[in-house]
Amino acid sequence: MATSEVKVLGIWPSPYVIRARIALNIKSVNYEFVQEPIGSKSELLLKSNPIHKKIPVMIHGDKIICESLIIVQYIDEFWSSAPQILPSDPYDRAITRFWGAYIDHKLFPSMRIIALGHEDNEVMKKELNIIYESFALLEDVFQKSSNGKKFFGGENIGYLDIALGCNLGWVRVTEKMNNVKVLDEEKTPGLYKWSQDFSDDDAVKELIPETEKMIEAGLFFMNKMKASQS
Amino acid sequence: MATSEVKVLGIWPSPYVIRARIALNIKSVNYEFVQEPIGSKSELLLKSNPIHKKIPVMIHGDKIICESLIIVQYIDEFWSSAPQILPSDPYDRAITRFWGAYIDHKLFPSMRIIALGHEDNEVMKKELNIIYESFALLEDVFQKSSNGKKFFGGENIGYLDIALGCNLGWVRVTEKMNNVKVLDEEKTPGLYKWSQDFSDDDAVKELIPETEKMIEAGLFFMNKMKASQS
Repeated sequence: MATSEVKVLGIWPSPYVIRARIALNIKSVNYEFVQEPIGSKSELLLKSNPIHKKIPVMIHGDKIICESLIIVQYIDEFWSSAPQILPSDPYDRAITRFWGAYIDHKLFPSMRIIALGHEDNEVMKKELNIIYESFALLEDVFQKSSNGKKFFGGENIGYLDIALGCNLGWVRVTEKMNNVKVLDEEKTPGLYKWSQDFSDDDAVKELIPETEKMIEAGLFFMNKMKASQS
Repeated sequence: MATSEVKVLGIWPSPYVIRARIALNIKSVNYEFVQEPIGSKSELLLKSNPIHKKIPVMIHGDKIICESLIIVQYIDEFWSSAPQILPSDPYDRAITRFWGAYIDHKLFPSMRIIALGHEDNEVMKKELNIIYESFALLEDVFQKSSNGKKFFGGENIGYLDIALGCNLGWVRVTEKMNNVKVLDEEKTPGLYKWSQDFSDDDAVKELIPETEKMIEAGLFFMNKMKASQS
């Protein structure tokens, strides 16, 4: 049936694309992953997201949904009877959205600069510090909201787990390439354990790329991704 | 009762603050508007929003909610039996959120540059063009989603009306100070009519400041707002 067909347009190392795919896995929705060409934008992408021309795009029957956290919310609201991704309490939802926005507008831009590299060492140092500070803040959020459970969302993966966890592949690349510890067993013990539980989850484990594979493909992808990631 | 007390921290000309206030008016929620000092940040603001230190902040009993569109969603979800602000269909909600994010990340940054002024005329020209293009796009969105009705959300003011309409005061200042037409009866006929209906609505009319009052207070506020607006 046309309306039940789901496609995700994207490239495999993009954390934003991984968000949509984890959410679909949580809801047990079958979907087709349509790999975008590297270094150019497909006709389907340009037609589907003419405003931003960015991945991920989710096509659900005749409906097109863009922007990763909006896609995650759509998936949660459309398949509402499957495991819940956002909490149900309005205040918990607001807090969750606040930190989701923080991750997108404060943490990920710095992670992107570090991943792509920067010729000025001072810039690298400054951005790495933002990353450390952000993870220290998020450790605190995790301790409060997980309340001794495995995830930000409790015993199951929720919105904030997806929002942050989608980038674990690049966290590991950042650690390895810069010889640093972003998730530290002593400084961020909650998130350190969380990152393992998250990566091991059935909805996630096929999607977070192996560090070596990412580094190998990294340089090629990273140069091309500058123009196409959303 | 403590938990039912609502306060909004902000300054009156901030479109982001106006968003929260319109949403509360739509839900007929009584609230106290706490005017922030100009040029400094109150202890209450710094304590309430230590991450971004920005207005608006909504305090609801012992709960603190930050970031204007997150506040609007919280208000819609907490007072869920009053008139609905977001549409109920998941796809309509996704589209609404998409354009809300577009307004915040594409349109308003350009409106801000124009409102604050820029010494380089080329920058002013470029930013004005972004504003024209954005309103042309939003005219199209309006025509499709209002479907002959008064607002983006139908017969009643909804999320997208609030997201865009909160800035009508600055649209008018921009028009007057730069001798241009942003909302044009011929080029954007739907939005031109919409802007009048929106400003006349009971939930809005006390909140969109008069153009003359904004221009008068503008220079003073605008210089100070650079650091405090969210």
